[in-house]
Amino acid sequence: MLVNNKNYRTVWMQDNKVSLINQLLLPHKFEIFISNNCQETANAIKTMIVRGAGAIGAAGAYGVAQAVLEADKDNFSQYIENAVLSLKNTRPTAQNLFAGIDFVYDAIKNAANNIQNKDNFNGLRRIAVQKADEFADYDAESCRKIGEYGNSLIKDDFTIQTHCNAGWLAFVDWGSALSPVYLAHRSGKKVFVFVDETRPRNQGSSLTAWELANEKVPHAIIADNAAGHYMKEGKTNIVIVGADRIAANGDVANKIGTYEKAVLAKENEIPFYVAAPTTTFDLNCESGSKIPIEERSEDELHYIHGIDENNELKKVRIAPKESAARNPAFDVTPAKYITGIITEKGIVKANKEEIRKILS
Amino acid sequence: MLVNNKNYRTVWMQDNKVSLINQLLLPHKFEIFISNNCQETANAIKTMIVRGAGAIGAAGAYGVAQAVLEADKDNFSQYIENAVLSLKNTRPTAQNLFAGIDFVYDAIKNAANNIQNKDNFNGLRRIAVQKADEFADYDAESCRKIGEYGNSLIKDDFTIQTHCNAGWLAFVDWGSALSPVYLAHRSGKKVFVFVDETRPRNQGSSLTAWELANEKVPHAIIADNAAGHYMKEGKTNIVIVGADRIAANGDVANKIGTYEKAVLAKENEIPFYVAAPTTTFDLNCESGSKIPIEERSEDELHYIHGIDENNELKKVRIAPKESAARNPAFDVTPAKYITGIITEKGIVKANKEEIRKILS
Repeated sequence: MLVNNKNYRTVWMQDNKVSLINQLLLPHKFEIFISNNCQETANAIKTMIVRGAGAIGAAGAYGVAQAVLEADKDNFSQYIENAVLSLKNTRPTAQNLFAGIDFVYDAIKNAANNIQNKDNFNGLRRIAVQKADEFADYDAESCRKIGEYGNSLIKDDFTIQTHCNAGWLAFVDWGSALSPVYLAHRSGKKVFVFVDETRPRNQGSSLTAWELANEKVPHAIIADNAAGHYMKEGKTNIVIVGADRIAANGDVANKIGTYEKAVLAKENEIPFYVAAPTTTFDLNCESGSKIPIEERSEDELHYIHGIDENNELKKVRIAPKESAARNPAFDVTPAKYITGIITEKGIVKANKEEIRKILS
Repeated sequence: MLVNNKNYRTVWMQDNKVSLINQLLLPHKFEIFISNNCQETANAIKTMIVRGAGAIGAAGAYGVAQAVLEADKDNFSQYIENAVLSLKNTRPTAQNLFAGIDFVYDAIKNAANNIQNKDNFNGLRRIAVQKADEFADYDAESCRKIGEYGNSLIKDDFTIQTHCNAGWLAFVDWGSALSPVYLAHRSGKKVFVFVDETRPRNQGSSLTAWELANEKVPHAIIADNAAGHYMKEGKTNIVIVGADRIAANGDVANKIGTYEKAVLAKENEIPFYVAAPTTTFDLNCESGSKIPIEERSEDELHYIHGIDENNELKKVRIAPKESAARNPAFDVTPAKYITGIITEKGIVKANKEEIRKILS
């Protein structure tokens, strides 16, 4: 998508280097982080220079490709195996990261078993890079398809409410919840987006708003507290959010606050959609009550980062030292509040039968 | 209430000086601002050193008393009249400010008309200070009564959800929504408070949390987004919030986000109470739809204040320059979401009949 009128993906590979948009500096600075080798890519995933399911999946895939390019003939398999382990250890619960890593690693192992000339390392290297590109392309294309299906729900002059960042920065390109917005905007529809600030980590005001500004989509940042007010006032036509994990029954785990917006949308008879690639479904998870909710550091409520008058990144304390904080990172929105789930294979109702059907 | 184990009011008078807790520095610094004369008191109201309906009402009353103490015999009435105008011009929509000012001013005018000896200025001076104290005492006592009625709703081991700051800092003492919490805590009940951060001005994390910490009431700051999650998880027993204005039909205007919490409380069958002195009712306002919603500066979403590692107050930018923000300061919670309104005269249902009855 566009940044300063130039097209970018969040992650790409050139020669043996992986380029990543450094998401730690957004929205204040736009910088490309260049990872020179597999170990640097693993560190970039760990330190959240790259974040979001789709983007870290592709970064993992490219990391394996780097390892294949780097490996000596002498300890070829061992080097790659170590690299795979190190990449997998960066974010232990990110399913799409494992998918990206294994997609390339499995292809290499298969190819290595099948080739006649056991020393054809160049062939393996070519395959590794191709497969990593394929994984990244698939993510981008899935998101574009989500955008096409989602765009069918957006009418001219619609105001869309979103929460957190489910834009292209979380994927390779297009995004999930924002992809329909981008396609609607590019197809000439007049749209406006209410961007929930999304406390405590402010992914809405720092990432979603930044994306929309660069794509020139009209929008306004609002306090999470104001979303309900605008729904009640009839200003909001549709809500579209992303998902971290969708249970077999259609319950959705997503950024804290998603549940609040879903309840408010239902109360005000506003359609509430979840947009996510089918890789987000977890059929082994029966219902939302089985999804553990991560509790993150209270520092996220005690401190905040911003830039000062000299454009320097600064951390300031905003809450009293004596007060504890509670910080659940996600919540679960029961399926009954969800109008539909927009996937790359079409839009489904949030229930067991429709979900099973689209995944089969 | 307690600050560092010592008892304070938000505003009090000694000799001809008015002392105010400087709320601009909280929660990072606790300082008493000393106003040496009526003009300084007016400035303190204007610059929000003192804020909150009850507190600025009392500050206004004390400001008039200062004017009476300061006025020369030669232009006694003129000096006081000018002071009254200047005090009233500080915050043009704050009804309780006018009430405090007029309470003292009317008493002085009455007394001046009735006394035999037209030069008995000392008598008038004594009356002015007495009346200002009376106004402050009445505010404190009203809040204490709200606390007593509200305490009857709080059972042992309750977790209370609140929003914004409707604590003693907004009044002379005790507060409205927090008064029941303080009385419950002091009476030996085990209570816990979820404090909504209350974006965008963070009155929850900076004022409510600070109050509760000083009174040693167990509590945790949460993102506004997390309130619904805890309600759904069954962690919250009751919601108590304040009010800026209550319409004749029981609709309540209060800090942005109050409506969201009310809808979520109803959805989860949790009692939702509004606590406010009867001066908050506006019978001339038929329903909430007649209450204008102030839209405040987008700077409140673009910037935030905190203290840096050197304990210096710093302002940092947290959102991209290119993104607009929308910032409604209040919302209206329709009466149907409100379980009851806790006043100093008792608890009423949020409907026309019960409200008229308690006000008559």
